[in-house]
Amino acid sequence: MNYRQAGVDISRAEDALARIREKVRATNRPEVIGDVGAFAGLFRFGGSRDAVLVATTDGVGTKLELARLLDGHEGVGTDLVHHCVNDALAMGAEPLFFLDYFSTGRLEPEIFARVVGAIADACRAHGCALLGGETAELPGMYAPGVYDLAGFLVGAVERDAILDPGAARVGDVLIGLPSSGLHTNGYSLARAIVTRHAADEGRDELGTLNAPRPELRGGTLGDALLATHRSYLEDVRTLRRAAAVRSIAHLTGGGWEGNLPRALPAPLGAAIDRDAWTVPPVFRILGDWGGVPDEERFATWNMGIGLVAVIAPEDERAALRALPDAISLGAVEPALAGAQRVRWR
Amino acid sequence: MNYRQAGVDISRAEDALARIREKVRATNRPEVIGDVGAFAGLFRFGGSRDAVLVATTDGVGTKLELARLLDGHEGVGTDLVHHCVNDALAMGAEPLFFLDYFSTGRLEPEIFARVVGAIADACRAHGCALLGGETAELPGMYAPGVYDLAGFLVGAVERDAILDPGAARVGDVLIGLPSSGLHTNGYSLARAIVTRHAADEGRDELGTLNAPRPELRGGTLGDALLATHRSYLEDVRTLRRAAAVRSIAHLTGGGWEGNLPRALPAPLGAAIDRDAWTVPPVFRILGDWGGVPDEERFATWNMGIGLVAVIAPEDERAALRALPDAISLGAVEPALAGAQRVRWR
Repeated sequence: MNYRQAGVDISRAEDALARIREKVRATNRPEVIGDVGAFAGLFRFGGSRDAVLVATTDGVGTKLELARLLDGHEGVGTDLVHHCVNDALAMGAEPLFFLDYFSTGRLEPEIFARVVGAIADACRAHGCALLGGETAELPGMYAPGVYDLAGFLVGAVERDAILDPGAARVGDVLIGLPSSGLHTNGYSLARAIVTRHAADEGRDELGTLNAPRPELRGGTLGDALLATHRSYLEDVRTLRRAAAVRSIAHLTGGGWEGNLPRALPAPLGAAIDRDAWTVPPVFRILGDWGGVPDEERFATWNMGIGLVAVIAPEDERAALRALPDAISLGAVEPALAGAQRVRWR
Repeated sequence: MNYRQAGVDISRAEDALARIREKVRATNRPEVIGDVGAFAGLFRFGGSRDAVLVATTDGVGTKLELARLLDGHEGVGTDLVHHCVNDALAMGAEPLFFLDYFSTGRLEPEIFARVVGAIADACRAHGCALLGGETAELPGMYAPGVYDLAGFLVGAVERDAILDPGAARVGDVLIGLPSSGLHTNGYSLARAIVTRHAADEGRDELGTLNAPRPELRGGTLGDALLATHRSYLEDVRTLRRAAAVRSIAHLTGGGWEGNLPRALPAPLGAAIDRDAWTVPPVFRILGDWGGVPDEERFATWNMGIGLVAVIAPEDERAALRALPDAISLGAVEPALAGAQRVRWR
C-alpha cells in the first residue's frame, strides 16, 4: 500500500502549486525574502519604534457551498482577502502579508488554482504579499467537491494611528458605506431559505438561484449572492485624510448588533436611522421568502451597509464629500441599560 | 425562519468562546494591546532595524479523524501549535503570536474548548500569544462530529540569524532529533493500513487501535499514533548556543526526500546512515501491515527523526554533547544528477 492508494497524491499538490506560482510571485513586496518552498515566509519589518502588528483570521463560511453550486470559485478567494483586509482596517491597519489554508478531501488542481489564484490577485491589488499557504488533502473528511478555506492577514499601524473604540464620544456621527451584498456572512440562513423556497416552487435550488428576477433588474439571485465582499481599504484611506475617524465597525457575522458595538466603548450605543438607506433587493427577497423577522435580518445580515465609521461631528460634511457613496446613518448616544446597543430610530 | 433554524447558533459560539477566554488571556505577552473581541489582534513590534517576521500556516491533517475516534482532542490542538513552531524554527525564528481557525458543521462547545484550550496551553508554554481565532459553524459542510483546524504563527528573527539553506556546504554534518511518532503527517496512509488490517483480523478499527501490543511494550497503536508532535524550540535554542547551525529541516509531509533538501542549496544532497538510529516500532508495524516499500515509508513518514540540523563539522561533538538525544546521521555531499537528493548509505 502507498500514500496515493490511501487518497493523498503529492503530484496533484505539486500540479496545483505550479499553477499558481507566478501569481503568488507577483504579490511579492520588497520586504519579502526568499521564494516559495521555505518552511515559513520571511518578511523584513524593522525601523519604527511605535509599530504595531495587526493580525486577523477569517473564513468564507457556507458561501463556499454556493460558489461550488454556481461554479464561482474565484469569488470566494477574493472574498477571503477582502474580509481580512477590512477586519485589519477596522483597527486602522494597512495590509502587509497574507497566508491561506485550503483544505479538501481530494485536491482538484484546477479548482484550487482558481480559488488561490484569485486570492493572489486580490493580495496583489491590495499591495499585500501572499507569503505562504497550506494545501491539505484530507481523504474522507469532506464530501466530494467540498473545500474549506481560511485566510490569515498581518498588517501594521503606527501606535498613534490605531483606531480605538474607546475614542468614540456621544454625538459622534456614524457614516456608513454600502455593502455589495451579504459579503461573507449569513449564508447558512440564505441557503436554507432558498432551499425551502425552491421546494415550494417545485424547482431545484439551482433553478431558483438562476432565474432572472425583476426585483434584481433581471439579474439572478445566484449572482446577487455571489457578489464579492467589498474591500474598503481605499475608502478608509480617503476617509482618514478627510475626517477624524475615531473607530470603525466591519459588519460581518452577527450583523448590526453583533458588530457596531465593537466600535464603541461599553457605556455607549448607536442610534441609526433605518430610512437613511434603501435595503438592497437581495435582502428583501431572502427576508420575505423566509419570513425572517426584521430584528433577525439586522442581527444576521449587513442589510446593505458593510462598514460603519465613527467620526467627529464637525467632519461629517467633509467625510460625505470625500466618499460619494457614503451615507450619514445616525449618531453615538449613551446606551440604554438592558437594551440592545443599536437603537433604530 | 431564523439563523438558528438554519443550523447556526450564535449562543453556542458564545458558550464555546467563554470556556476558553481565561486560557487565551493567560497567553498574553506584554506586547499584546487590548482584549479579545476586537476585529483583529494588536501586537507591539518595534525597535530593531533588522527584524524579520516569519509566518507559517499548517493543519493537523487526518490525525484529526483519529483524535475524534479515540477522543484525543487536546492532542491535536497541541500538535497544531508545535507544527507551526517547528516550521518557524526552521528559519531560525522565535514565536511571537498565533491564530487558530476551527471549522465544523455543528459547534460542540465542549470539544471546541478541549481543542482550543490545548492550543492556548501550548501557546503559553512557548511564550507565544494566542492573538485571535475564527470559529466557523458551517452546516452541511462536515459530517457530524468532524472539524478542521488550521493554525497561523508569526515569529521573528534578526536578519543575521536567519537560517539559510544556502549556507550549507559539502562536509557539513547532519544532526537528527528523534520524533515522538508520525507527528502530523502520513495519517491518511496510516489509517488506510489500520482499516484494512482490522478487516483482515475480523475486528473494527477501534479494536485494532486499542489492542495492547508487545512491540509497543504493551501500549496501543492508538496511543502511539496520537503521540504529540514534538516541539523542538528548546532543543534548537540549545543547539544554536553550542554549534554553528547552517540550516534546519522539519520532516513533515513528504518525509525525508520532501523536506531535507529544503534545508540545502540546489547542487547539494545528503548522505544518511540509516543504521544511525532505530526506527520506532509504530513505523515498523504500519509499514509491515501495509506492505509499504521502504522508499515509500521514508517519503511519507519521518521514520523516527523529526528535525535535522545542518551544522559545521567542527561542532559535531559540541552539538551531540549539548543535546543528549541527538543523533549524528551523516553529511552533506554533492547531489547526483537525476537522483534523489537524500542518499541512504
